[in-house]
Amino acid sequence: MNLSPIFTAVRTFNNDDTIVALATGGGIAAIAVIRLSGKESFTVAQKIFFPAKGKKKPIADYKTHTLHFGSIKENDRLIDEVLLSVMKGPHSFTGEDTIEISCHGSTYVQQKILELCLANGARLADPGEFTMRAFLNGKMDLTQAEAVADLIASDSSGAHSLAMKQMRGGFSEEIKKLRNELIHFASLIELELDFAEEDVEFANRGHLRETIDNILRVIEKLVRSFEFGNVIRKGIPVVIAGRPNAGKSTLLNALLNENRAIVSETEGTTRDTIEEEITLEGVKFRFIDTAGLRETHDAIEKIGVSKTFEKMNESPVILYIFDVIGTTGNQLYAELEKLKSNVTPGVRIIPVGNKIDAVSIYNVEQAYSMIKNPIFISARDKTNIDQLRNLLLSLYSHGKIEANNSIVTSARHVDALKHTAECLQRVYNGLLGNLTNDFIAADLRHAMNYLGEITGEISTDDLLENIFSKFCIGK
Amino acid sequence: MNLSPIFTAVRTFNNDDTIVALATGGGIAAIAVIRLSGKESFTVAQKIFFPAKGKKKPIADYKTHTLHFGSIKENDRLIDEVLLSVMKGPHSFTGEDTIEISCHGSTYVQQKILELCLANGARLADPGEFTMRAFLNGKMDLTQAEAVADLIASDSSGAHSLAMKQMRGGFSEEIKKLRNELIHFASLIELELDFAEEDVEFANRGHLRETIDNILRVIEKLVRSFEFGNVIRKGIPVVIAGRPNAGKSTLLNALLNENRAIVSETEGTTRDTIEEEITLEGVKFRFIDTAGLRETHDAIEKIGVSKTFEKMNESPVILYIFDVIGTTGNQLYAELEKLKSNVTPGVRIIPVGNKIDAVSIYNVEQAYSMIKNPIFISARDKTNIDQLRNLLLSLYSHGKIEANNSIVTSARHVDALKHTAECLQRVYNGLLGNLTNDFIAADLRHAMNYLGEITGEISTDDLLENIFSKFCIGK
Repeated sequence: MNLSPIFTAVRTFNNDDTIVALATGGGIAAIAVIRLSGKESFTVAQKIFFPAKGKKKPIADYKTHTLHFGSIKENDRLIDEVLLSVMKGPHSFTGEDTIEISCHGSTYVQQKILELCLANGARLADPGEFTMRAFLNGKMDLTQAEAVADLIASDSSGAHSLAMKQMRGGFSEEIKKLRNELIHFASLIELELDFAEEDVEFANRGHLRETIDNILRVIEKLVRSFEFGNVIRKGIPVVIAGRPNAGKSTLLNALLNENRAIVSETEGTTRDTIEEEITLEGVKFRFIDTAGLRETHDAIEKIGVSKTFEKMNESPVILYIFDVIGTTGNQLYAELEKLKSNVTPGVRIIPVGNKIDAVSIYNVEQAYSMIKNPIFISARDKTNIDQLRNLLLSLYSHGKIEANNSIVTSARHVDALKHTAECLQRVYNGLLGNLTNDFIAADLRHAMNYLGEITGEISTDDLLENIFSKFCIGK
Repeated sequence: MNLSPIFTAVRTFNNDDTIVALATGGGIAAIAVIRLSGKESFTVAQKIFFPAKGKKKPIADYKTHTLHFGSIKENDRLIDEVLLSVMKGPHSFTGEDTIEISCHGSTYVQQKILELCLANGARLADPGEFTMRAFLNGKMDLTQAEAVADLIASDSSGAHSLAMKQMRGGFSEEIKKLRNELIHFASLIELELDFAEEDVEFANRGHLRETIDNILRVIEKLVRSFEFGNVIRKGIPVVIAGRPNAGKSTLLNALLNENRAIVSETEGTTRDTIEEEITLEGVKFRFIDTAGLRETHDAIEKIGVSKTFEKMNESPVILYIFDVIGTTGNQLYAELEKLKSNVTPGVRIIPVGNKIDAVSIYNVEQAYSMIKNPIFISARDKTNIDQLRNLLLSLYSHGKIEANNSIVTSARHVDALKHTAECLQRVYNGLLGNLTNDFIAADLRHAMNYLGEITGEISTDDLLENIFSKFCIGK
């Protein structure tokens, strides 16, 4: 029976030396933390740390998970008074002997202590190297390691929950379960291969097809969850369109004030768009302003021809804001039709009539009776803002982050899942078409490898380097 | 005998509650540290921290200076996996029970843990409040507390050494010694007051004058050290003047490359100047570029009339860079004379002839024989850059930071020292003029109070608030 993977795990990273990096945010702060990990962590620290009380004794003799007040010195020169944390492997994040030096947050002191660690045998850590060591030392699998980076980057409740769930191993479990089913399946096929000359059939073909079909369904569900996972992480894009002075800024402020949400104005990926991020009930929305397009009178026309519009088409929702005072029903109808003809089919356009504080709501409803599902608000008076907010939230409620729902957040994982599905589809077709067992077994092995790459049971140097290079230094 | 101070130490700050703040730099990083200090630190942490191993037990039962891995939860929701540091008062920075939560450096996680601490009984710390508590709890005196802020802000070896020395109590010792001499002196005077009717003289007047005179000399030396202390902290200002394209940028780069120094371009306090900071052998120089003045042909004329020049006059050194190819000796002489007539007398002007790579050095020296002490360099080829650097360093070598030299770095300390000197001068004159003991005693008490304010033996709420409000939050 031969189940050896096609890609073997090549763990040739240099794991023998001791790495050091600043673990806290750069710049001036009350304190900063410098982290050492590796076999020589204690030796390096020993050379530069002098305890305030008692005689200097080997750091290796300290108990694990203890704190020690003392000085960092360069020869006789006092660099700082620090707290030294001692954590002995495997009871540390990396699984290795680890020292954390909590020093004053001066840029000079931080730099100096780093230099001293380097001079005494440590090496500056590569991005993500602490987490990579945790992975290589079996403290976590690859999806969990990747979740660490997501967790650190999380800036909304939704993104945080997704990352935390993945870090706790929920997604890995699901993948491992699928892989185990495939391993069982493959073992039967390989067994048949071993007895090929005798033409026995250990596995019922109908049953096998059913298993593969089930796995394909699960994978399809996971792949579909990516869209949701991705918007939760990056924020749900919502394009705001409309004529100048329709009330876009006031609306954003109203959404904000209602919810004490976080706003940040970031330049979009093109110069033509400006994005504002607002977190509503833990879900981040990226409101994409078409400000750059407002200069012409016929904003919609301009949208249609602009490159910006390509970007806008990535957004599943457009809020089309209009002023109920200056816009007739027919005008609006025409504008919406024009907009519709310019966007990808399926993009949802929500007409939002603003400034109802100035007119009778009954008249307004009459005036726009030919418009489908408009929302009427007063951004100034915050009328119906709740309704609009709930509508936005409901657009993504179908995929709420629930305890038993795995949600894929990584393009890498989706890629691997899609590859797995392709292989399994070939297996399925092979079973139908009575393909010989060698072909089926080869495709199965490929599928298992792709799944194994997700959790890191199968990994290559390139894969690991690619993943961890996206981390920040110090993690 | 009445030695009670005129200002009494009023320690009415709310020291009873528990404070919390982010102690590390803002933004995304591998880890962040949230610090709790106060009576309820353990109670607050208890409510949100759940150890990974073993049963939950009272944090007060943990040993001091131990680390504990576990989770921060909001009800059942997992917020993060963290390391909890437990430090029991008085064995902590503040002297109070202290908890440090080392969490993942996500902005969301940081914010959430802070919120949880606030919701469970802590209060957000004011700027410098941790250090103020350390002062109020007798862990350090006021000059040491102030040195903590200086240490955090230090970005050069010189500034760091000054702050570290002050934090270790060197300056305080000197002040306390002076104050003790005054106390001894005052006790004799007060004794005479107690026996006023008997007209005895416990203290020899000549000896007393000598003591006061000695103290005045020490204070004068300390006050004088401030100029040096200040430039070490803030950097030594060096104005760079010269015609466009004389080679200023190349020179700065050459100084840099020679020394792997740190450069940062910061906007000056006025829009007309740009400052570049370069640290040479641990001493920070602020090169003030007169770029804003370069638009006119007659740069020097412009300097004379510009407001910028007022700022330039604060600088003790002007490097006047000229191009040895395009500048005749007579031209240069005239330019330097013009410059000299426009700056404060005493400002040192160093003529720096650039581009000697293109001509014979002998010819150059001949051509500028009427110029006093020029330096000839090639910024491009880095010729004589060492010489220039050493010249700059020598300008401040007279006040090297030595172990036994107290250097005043704070304007507050200088003010208090000057006030002390005024009082003591009155005492001195009083002793000469046979002023009655009541007046002398009153002046002595004032002097002692001013000295006491430096170390914080005498302090007022206003004084403390003023000092600590300049700290960053979290320290």
